[in-house]
This record gives sequence, structure tokens and C-alpha cells, in this order.
Amino acid sequence: MNNKKERKGLVIVNTGNGKGKTTAAVGTLFRSYGHGFRICVIQFIKAEEVKTGEFLAAQSLGIEWHYCGDGFVFESETAQNSAEIAREGWRLAKEKISDQKYDLVILDEFTYPLKFGWLDISEVIDWLKDNKPSTMHLVITGRNALPELIDYADLVTEMKEIKHPYREQKIPAQIGTDF
Amino acid sequence: MNNKKERKGLVIVNTGNGKGKTTAAVGTLFRSYGHGFRICVIQFIKAEEVKTGEFLAAQSLGIEWHYCGDGFVFESETAQNSAEIAREGWRLAKEKISDQKYDLVILDEFTYPLKFGWLDISEVIDWLKDNKPSTMHLVITGRNALPELIDYADLVTEMKEIKHPYREQKIPAQIGTDF
Repeated sequence: MNNKKERKGLVIVNTGNGKGKTTAAVGTLFRSYGHGFRICVIQFIKAEEVKTGEFLAAQSLGIEWHYCGDGFVFESETAQNSAEIAREGWRLAKEKISDQKYDLVILDEFTYPLKFGWLDISEVIDWLKDNKPSTMHLVITGRNALPELIDYADLVTEMKEIKHPYREQKIPAQIGTDF
Repeated sequence: MNNKKERKGLVIVNTGNGKGKTTAAVGTLFRSYGHGFRICVIQFIKAEEVKTGEFLAAQSLGIEWHYCGDGFVFESETAQNSAEIAREGWRLAKEKISDQKYDLVILDEFTYPLKFGWLDISEVIDWLKDNKPSTMHLVITGRNALPELIDYADLVTEMKEIKHPYREQKIPAQIGTDF
């Protein structure tokens, strides 16, 4: 990319209970793709079986995409397994972030492994402070972003639910808008 | 698209003072693109001179994109001109929405012409109720969504600013994340 020296790589957190956290991260991906950025997406929590529109689109455009989840969002009897998969995801994230190859790295739903204590928040942030390339944008999504993460981030948006089609009208998740 | 009969076209509003309104709309575009949806974007307010990453990406993928703005966001001496351009944009939007050709139409920053009274909110919503195809998703973005619009929408998210890089650190808008 041109103008690398003038660029300041932002740490962006999309959090809150509303829709639009992953969606906005995907929007940043599309925006960055338009500028020729080199992009890597790592999805925590979500499992590969779900072929989302964003995954299909990224695949068709040759954008790097990794799944590091088993599909269970909440702590449960599978937590041991989920935690191990998340730690594997973080090892992959560190590899991708530190190799200086990317302009944008997205860690989707990365707040959960931090919130659940599967990864130590201080260790993660200390590592990022030392190793994130200064011009690389980093986007992290998920509910319940910890205060330490918000403190570290440059840009934090809370996606707040005002009206939800399932809750109000029992309309189930829709192709193209929800996945 | 398959499963058209089972689909319920949602009316989605991304509003609030935070980042991520247009970004999430662009994310919905990317998600929909992955599913092979036919997409049309109409940008109000923004002028064509700004070649955003999302515009460049859409152009490279053959996604239909229209600019209907003169670049002035706020009411000013240019309001007369801005209002006329916005009304032209709405005429185009009606044409696109009613021709049954699209699975997703995005009206970016469309809340402003409504808020400023350049278009009559009741007329707009009555027209949409009568003419929006039932399986077509419609995404509207912008601050200060009027109560009538929120009432009509299926899904409303408020993007709330928690932390902003310019306000807190004087970091200007960045390529790839802001445009």
C-alpha cells in the first residue's frame, strides 16, 4: 500500500448487544479490499460448517479466512474444548499479526475467549502492544468487551439493539442479512 | 436466488452517533454478495469525488452504485441544491426498489433528507409499504432516524460512540477504516 508511513493502524472494537458488530467488521474488510489491503480474518467461536455470505464472498475473492471455533458461544460442558480451540486461534492470530504481511486483521468474536478467561487479557494486550505493526488495522468484535480491551482500543462502538425482528415479530435469521 | 418464498425482506436501520452505520451496511452488502444477491446502493449526501474503498470494491465486482449527494451533510446555504439532489435520489430509489430486480437495496445516509424535511417522511413510508418487494432487504443508514422510520423498520441498531480516535487522540480519518 502507498502512504504506509502516514498511516496509523487503528485498533477497533465493535461491541454491544445489538446487530452489526461482525457486519461492520465485514464492511471494514470490504472497504479495505477496495484499497488493495492485504487482509486476514480469524473467526473465533463460529464453526466452519456455517457457510456465511461473508465467508463465501471472501473465498471467491481470495481473502484469507480462518475458523477457530466449535460453534458453541456460551460456557458449557464443551468449554474445555472451546477454550483449547480459542487458544489455538490466538496462536494463529499472533503468527498472522506479527509477520508484517497484513494491512488489516479481523479477530471476530474475540471478546468471548477473553471474557471467559480462556485467554489472559493482560497477556493478550501486552503482546499486541509489543507486536502489532503500527500501520496495521486490527478489528475485534463481540459482546462484553473487557475494560482493558476498551482502554487499549482507539475506536470503540457499542452496537445497541433498538428493535429486533425476532424479538418483536418472531422473524428468524435471514440469509444475506444475518449470515 | 433460491428460497425466495421463504425469505422475508427486512427493513434495517443503522443509526446513532457512532461509527459503523455505513460500515455495517457495506458488511450486509458483502454478505449478500456472497449469496449471489442482486444489489443496488444509493448514497445520499456523499459526493462522487470521494472514491471510498467500498465504492472501488463494488465497482471492481460490478455492483450497482449511485451517488446522489453534493458532499454537504448539514443544512446550509447549499440546502436548496442538496434538497433537489436528494429528491432526485429518492426518485431513483423508487425506480430501483419497485422494479423487482434487487434482493438488497441500500439507501446510505437516507435519514438526513428525511430529518431535514427535504422529503416527507409519511409519503416515503407509505410508498415503501405499498411498493417494497416482500423479499427485498432494505438498509437505511444515518444519524437521527425519525420515529416514523424506526416504527416502520424491522431491525434498528444504534451505533453508539464509546471511544473515538480523533476526539481522544486527534488521529484523522484513516484509509481502509474510515473511507
